Amino acid sequence: MPEITVYIAHSVDGYIADRDGSVSWLDPFEGWDFGWDAFYRTIDALVMGATTYRECRRTPEWPYRGKAVIVMTKSGRLDEDGLAVFDDRTAVEIAYDLERAGLGRIWVVGGGGPIRAFLDAGLVRRLRTFQMPVILGAGTPLWTPGRKRWRAEPRAVTVHANGVVECDHTVHAPEGAVDDSPWTRV
Amino acid sequence: MPEITVYIAHSVDGYIADRDGSVSWLDPFEGWDFGWDAFYRTIDALVMGATTYRECRRTPEWPYRGKAVIVMTKSGRLDEDGLAVFDDRTAVEIAYDLERAGLGRIWVVGGGGPIRAFLDAGLVRRLRTFQMPVILGAGTPLWTPGRKRWRAEPRAVTVHANGVVECDHTVHAPEGAVDDSPWTRV
Repeated sequence: MPEITVYIAHSVDGYIADRDGSVSWLDPFEGWDFGWDAFYRTIDALVMGATTYRECRRTPEWPYRGKAVIVMTKSGRLDEDGLAVFDDRTAVEIAYDLERAGLGRIWVVGGGGPIRAFLDAGLVRRLRTFQMPVILGAGTPLWTPGRKRWRAEPRAVTVHANGVVECDHTVHAPEGAVDDSPWTRV
Repeated sequence: MPEITVYIAHSVDGYIADRDGSVSWLDPFEGWDFGWDAFYRTIDALVMGATTYRECRRTPEWPYRGKAVIVMTKSGRLDEDGLAVFDDRTAVEIAYDLERAGLGRIWVVGGGGPIRAFLDAGLVRRLRTFQMPVILGAGTPLWTPGRKRWRAEPRAVTVHANGVVECDHTVHAPEGAVDDSPWTRV
């Protein structure tokens, strides 16, 4: 089965973008070593939602050159320049095809919708969150409501000198639950 | 000025109660030492919302005997047995009166509404959160939208052997902001 990781920064009050949809509140933390390079090297493919994709397109240079990028959207092709594939299918279908293509190490970038879709599908194995030392007050929440309960076992928690609390969790089926991983079904 | 602390458990996905409004999902963590006794001894008064109050009344014994309990509500008196005071005023007014009465060490119990009201009023100095090793999927969110941005500086982060990640943050005005603490105004 694929190795699917959520790796995302959020405020103490659980927001990933501010009330204008911007992620510029993260700028003061740029350049700090959060193990990003090592993580990114291990990744074959990225999956993101349309809002996150549009935010990524605001930078002059496409930041994910050389990686497969899938945008989960029901809106068809948002661009024609081939930097991303626009896909209206479910998390399971996308993950299954990526793995068959040899791209099984997947980073679910965000936002809340795709992350919850992969969680609800039983696909997320690692949850790496970076709690920034900021209470934003309002904005786009990381967590959207879903359907399923999971255990999240901490593997490592790191407090960075700039106040960022990094949590690395392994996601498991709840105690006593039958493993209904899609990989036993497809 | 009063010493106001938020001390609250939440799921990894930021919920404080499950989709039925119940906190029974916390039962497996009962009896573990989270420094509760030491914290509770330092507290003069508790402030909570009406929903939290009603949840507390479901236990056979009133759990906060001997402490002043203020319920923030616009609905008047919810009970007549004198275990709590029902108060329709703002966070600043409540905190000010409690401190004048010599009850300046205040625990804002929850839920999200009162916590955000005290934060927006610039009254919360410590934020002690207990991230349970559970992804609940849906329920009552800890964080409701507010108006103000704050810095949250980690004082201590503890990973308990049962997987709970305890974060103790000090809340400060944002970098460069004027201190508009209500204690310089009242």
